[in-house]
Amino acid sequence: MADYRFVKGHGTENDFVIVPADVELTPERARALCDRRAGIGGDGVIRAVRQDGRWFMDYLNSDGSVSEMCGNGIRLYGRYLHDREGEPLPLEVGTRDGVKTLTADDGSITVDLGTPRVLGETTVTVDGRSWPATHVDMGNPHAVAFVDDLADAGSLLTPPDHDPAVFPDGVNVEFVVRRGERHVAMRVHERGSGETRSCGTGACAAMVAAATADGRGRGSAYRVDVPGGTLTISWTDDDRVLLTGPAVIVAQGTTSL
Amino acid sequence: MADYRFVKGHGTENDFVIVPADVELTPERARALCDRRAGIGGDGVIRAVRQDGRWFMDYLNSDGSVSEMCGNGIRLYGRYLHDREGEPLPLEVGTRDGVKTLTADDGSITVDLGTPRVLGETTVTVDGRSWPATHVDMGNPHAVAFVDDLADAGSLLTPPDHDPAVFPDGVNVEFVVRRGERHVAMRVHERGSGETRSCGTGACAAMVAAATADGRGRGSAYRVDVPGGTLTISWTDDDRVLLTGPAVIVAQGTTSL
Repeated sequence: MADYRFVKGHGTENDFVIVPADVELTPERARALCDRRAGIGGDGVIRAVRQDGRWFMDYLNSDGSVSEMCGNGIRLYGRYLHDREGEPLPLEVGTRDGVKTLTADDGSITVDLGTPRVLGETTVTVDGRSWPATHVDMGNPHAVAFVDDLADAGSLLTPPDHDPAVFPDGVNVEFVVRRGERHVAMRVHERGSGETRSCGTGACAAMVAAATADGRGRGSAYRVDVPGGTLTISWTDDDRVLLTGPAVIVAQGTTSL
Repeated sequence: MADYRFVKGHGTENDFVIVPADVELTPERARALCDRRAGIGGDGVIRAVRQDGRWFMDYLNSDGSVSEMCGNGIRLYGRYLHDREGEPLPLEVGTRDGVKTLTADDGSITVDLGTPRVLGETTVTVDGRSWPATHVDMGNPHAVAFVDDLADAGSLLTPPDHDPAVFPDGVNVEFVVRRGERHVAMRVHERGSGETRSCGTGACAAMVAAATADGRGRGSAYRVDVPGGTLTISWTDDDRVLLTGPAVIVAQGTTSL
């Protein structure tokens, strides 16, 4: 097709290309746009389209596969809808995982990721070393392991071993260290993507596991440092998890990809 | 500064951001533009500026360091000057390594990289395994090792060991297999960058070593497959090496980085 418009931006270095509704978003095009050398580069593509009277996040991963939701992606989408489409926030945005509410505060964008489920203990293993881990479901599956040092998880070039009976479709694994009161840092291995600079639902799962272990639970907020920046996670009294952090548009233009 | 224009493109997946002359190209800005998650992403930045009556390639690597020349980068610069600035090719372009001549043919862009120097035999070592290698100088130092299989070089996550007496400033190492008559394939470990998808001077060094080993030398042309595509290298009768391959602009726009 002819050249079309795009926007590129990121939230804690989870980066995305946003394209308009009239772009046919095929898996091939998502791969071409997300290619970090032959394309523009991104962890995924968001097609900005209206559906059922609201904006909808038509999202594909960098490998062309469909993803129901992406916590940092929808925060960047909120930035785009506010700054470029003139939408006031709070704003309800449709996703394949249902309608999400976005709010803005002091340069940050927050998304309500709904109610977490803490599903018990499991084990993750890297390079023959095992840790107990908390199974947290944020709509997608997570195993959160507390470690003494983030380096303990090694190179993370291959997926951590996990219990296939607990996670038949694979799992996102968070390695978490405590940095202070209500303050943790983490590394994450995302299923299908490898180690990434940030994972929104992973940060939420880490916070839920930490707050549970600390006996705080609902009604608390934690700072979660990820390799790509800092996120704030609030677990509300009414059992919802709010993901807050920066969302920055860095470029806009046209492409023929 | 205010938003400024950029172009992004690549040659065999060696990718670059091109900015206009009025952009102050500091090391910090080069790093920000080349950041593959928080920026636009690239192996380097080219500032398009006129100097001494011709176009000059003001080039910085992705880490902000100065580089004299970049074979695939100047080919993309030629594409930009032809397609976006209306310059007819052949065209002489200034670089910190002197004036280079660019030509266009059938969708490809060719750069004349000058006279190679074959400087004898050395040894490179990866994971305890050693190969004899040909020391080729293309303005920058290369060690070309012929291997049975490109996988023999392993993960290349660390620089191959080399003789520091021969290469006091480090060396680019090419691992080369033969694919047919006048046809080789290679992987490259670039000093300072690690394994890359393509290296223009590395492909030239591999061709010069292969043509020398084959008893062909000057007056021959080879196909060199790199991970990011295919290059054609000609070693002319008057002892110059011409690097030919695709050079593609994939996006253009504005950024505030």
